[in-house]
Amino acid sequence: MPGEPQTFFPPDGYLPAVTDLYELTMAAGYFENAIDYSATFELWVRNLPPQRSYLIACGLEDCVRYLSDLSFSKDTVEYLRAQEVFKHVSDAFFDYLRRMKFTGDMWAIPEGTVVFAGEPLIRITAPIIEAQLVETFLLSVINYQTTVATKASRVVDAAHMGGVERPVVDFGLRRAHGPGAGISAARASFIGGCAGTSNVYAGYRHGIPVYGTAAHSWTMAFDSELESFEKYYKTFPESTILLIDTYDVKQGAINAAKIGDGLRGVRLDSGDLVAQSKMVRRILDDAGLKNAQIVASGDLNEYKIRDMLRAGALLDIFGVGTGMVVSCDAPALQCIYKLVEEQKGGRTVYKAKFSEDKAMYPGAKQVRRISNGHGEFQRDVICRHDEKMKGEALLTKILEDGKPVGGLPDIKEIQSHAKEQLARLPERYKRFDGADVYPVSYSPALEALLEEVKKQYR
Amino acid sequence: MPGEPQTFFPPDGYLPAVTDLYELTMAAGYFENAIDYSATFELWVRNLPPQRSYLIACGLEDCVRYLSDLSFSKDTVEYLRAQEVFKHVSDAFFDYLRRMKFTGDMWAIPEGTVVFAGEPLIRITAPIIEAQLVETFLLSVINYQTTVATKASRVVDAAHMGGVERPVVDFGLRRAHGPGAGISAARASFIGGCAGTSNVYAGYRHGIPVYGTAAHSWTMAFDSELESFEKYYKTFPESTILLIDTYDVKQGAINAAKIGDGLRGVRLDSGDLVAQSKMVRRILDDAGLKNAQIVASGDLNEYKIRDMLRAGALLDIFGVGTGMVVSCDAPALQCIYKLVEEQKGGRTVYKAKFSEDKAMYPGAKQVRRISNGHGEFQRDVICRHDEKMKGEALLTKILEDGKPVGGLPDIKEIQSHAKEQLARLPERYKRFDGADVYPVSYSPALEALLEEVKKQYR
Repeated sequence: MPGEPQTFFPPDGYLPAVTDLYELTMAAGYFENAIDYSATFELWVRNLPPQRSYLIACGLEDCVRYLSDLSFSKDTVEYLRAQEVFKHVSDAFFDYLRRMKFTGDMWAIPEGTVVFAGEPLIRITAPIIEAQLVETFLLSVINYQTTVATKASRVVDAAHMGGVERPVVDFGLRRAHGPGAGISAARASFIGGCAGTSNVYAGYRHGIPVYGTAAHSWTMAFDSELESFEKYYKTFPESTILLIDTYDVKQGAINAAKIGDGLRGVRLDSGDLVAQSKMVRRILDDAGLKNAQIVASGDLNEYKIRDMLRAGALLDIFGVGTGMVVSCDAPALQCIYKLVEEQKGGRTVYKAKFSEDKAMYPGAKQVRRISNGHGEFQRDVICRHDEKMKGEALLTKILEDGKPVGGLPDIKEIQSHAKEQLARLPERYKRFDGADVYPVSYSPALEALLEEVKKQYR
Repeated sequence: MPGEPQTFFPPDGYLPAVTDLYELTMAAGYFENAIDYSATFELWVRNLPPQRSYLIACGLEDCVRYLSDLSFSKDTVEYLRAQEVFKHVSDAFFDYLRRMKFTGDMWAIPEGTVVFAGEPLIRITAPIIEAQLVETFLLSVINYQTTVATKASRVVDAAHMGGVERPVVDFGLRRAHGPGAGISAARASFIGGCAGTSNVYAGYRHGIPVYGTAAHSWTMAFDSELESFEKYYKTFPESTILLIDTYDVKQGAINAAKIGDGLRGVRLDSGDLVAQSKMVRRILDDAGLKNAQIVASGDLNEYKIRDMLRAGALLDIFGVGTGMVVSCDAPALQCIYKLVEEQKGGRTVYKAKFSEDKAMYPGAKQVRRISNGHGEFQRDVICRHDEKMKGEALLTKILEDGKPVGGLPDIKEIQSHAKEQLARLPERYKRFDGADVYPVSYSPALEALLEEVKKQYR
């Protein structure tokens, strides 16, 4: 069993199998019934999660990589063929799977864009089997990365209270939903405005700045706290930030101050951070260490950071883990992926569903954003994809015939885009209670199409 | 950018970099200060999450694979060497990293075991650099898989109301925190008692039964619902379960019944499932399809399933996604990993920390479980690792000198173990409110050791 790859990190060629079985039974059904026309699916968030008035779109780059490289390995196809459910399915279907590539078009709203419920974030047009098969993976990627980018933007907003840009660093890998989630969280939280991550692989892979100092165990590994601090400083004379709450915070601050001018800062990880930060600041200042920074960590989130800063906490940097990467107050996002139209022999057939609590609009769509003269976002209109309307069109073409249309922005560009987007979003939608609803409407042409489709089904 | 591996699925050799930077700065610190004695760390859950009176331990197999295969790739080591923070660290350290393997011992509580807060789930004894470095990855794996196995056991408990073993299937991949989390969730929820998963890769990789039928888009892809049902049945004559809520549930049930005896079941995914299930059951029964099953899905969890069954819902199978794989009511677990002792030149030095809200017990530990004459769990005692005590010892040796001591159980054995464990746990600890606290105490010898260590630090 050792020697095998980690079960939760499938090697290349296995990614198409990271999907729900029903995507493959439907694929077989379409194949066996010779249904091969082109279909358009859209991915959107059904409802905003609690306490949220906006989302930061995130995850597109991983989806593009997935679609561009989609290819089934031999043994996953053989595995499928051996499943009882496929017993009556022809060999031709499995041969097809082995050859299958993604050959369709993808339109999407760029990562880092402020988006709202109901707005298509991704639109896929492809032979129906391909368009259907990719549903589960795309949802899984977009749901999580959008959740974290959004949460991070709130945490960063709290940390920047009063216009002071106190950095937020992702400390979440250990509490994320597995190592893969931790890596995606580092990426998404950087896009949401974090200054960096503690996650070394994410730093290596994405070029995100990495941060880290020492744990309680470092302090505990020496005979005295002071010795542990001196030994750390000896090895890292230019980047010593000392964790001072292992035994007693006051004594820890006094010991840290003995390092002198080389001390970059101290970290507080437990207890009443407001009171501690004031005491520690005094100790550092009295030792002439006005530039030594105080880092706060330990189950933080946007609410706690806001409350601590309002209470006068003297904190300079925040390490945020669980609350951000698990997005505890809203840990799941309701992204869905639905068939909206088919192209059958030159004719477009519009599709919708009308089940009690999950209704939707038919047809390929675009989102138009209307801003005021200062560039501030006023309202969005979800319209037909080819409808002439004022406002900025949010969806752009990303893949054509399965191939990337242009380059994708790098992560720093995406972060800048998100920052600029948030600056254009009126303040009332950034409040942490999510009480104000940004106006999103459907165009009259789309409303008319919905009525037409409803009539057709009656 | 296409052609590169998915960012959240690191290739082999990159896993040691899936860690917090501070594990590596500490490693460099130990190395540069010639600190190479053996250290013992333990991993435990600080507090039980809300509404939980127990946990199901899960994730060990992935940890064993990680430790057994630990090895740094050349380019991650070069990446580290180039980081500003390591500027004053010698080349010898990076050479050491390139050669590093995990050479230590691991004791652990087997997967599927019922466990409680404070109990060490894993104990690592190894040269301090190795023992420290693996912290983040182990925490990330155990935190998530234990969260999901626990949640799944509650969902399955709800579904088995009245002793009827209604199967629960994991439908969560699309809402999990990324594809990696979805794969781990399939494994952990099977261990927690699920009958299978919709996740094809998890089925392939872990030998978990896979389930799936069709989505709304299948129904919508045809000119009429009836046509979509007939076409599905043609391809899958022995496993047709039809989703009947795309347009109108009653008409959907009537259309599904037209399939006749071959119909295996129908699925309801929206609206009032209690009322719908009664209506649909009548339609199916009236058509002579008493064996056709009703599958329920759509944002379910243990609370909703219990309430629906209490209200007389006629549901046979549950497909559960978001609520289970995100564990929405308790999405994070507070697993921690702490230094408890060092072995310095034949002498054991005990370690603890006493910060305000995060105190801990020193020394290598064992957990003893005391059961009554019927095998029912009565109480646990956390004691010193070598203490003679009555009760079953929960931690067993898994790795010795970095090598597996014996085989690990396969996933079906783990599932059986969890089932047996839950049968031995008194009912009051399985209630969904988590109000009853299972008695876990520390042995007098461990209390005495704590006092001794406290004195030492004063």
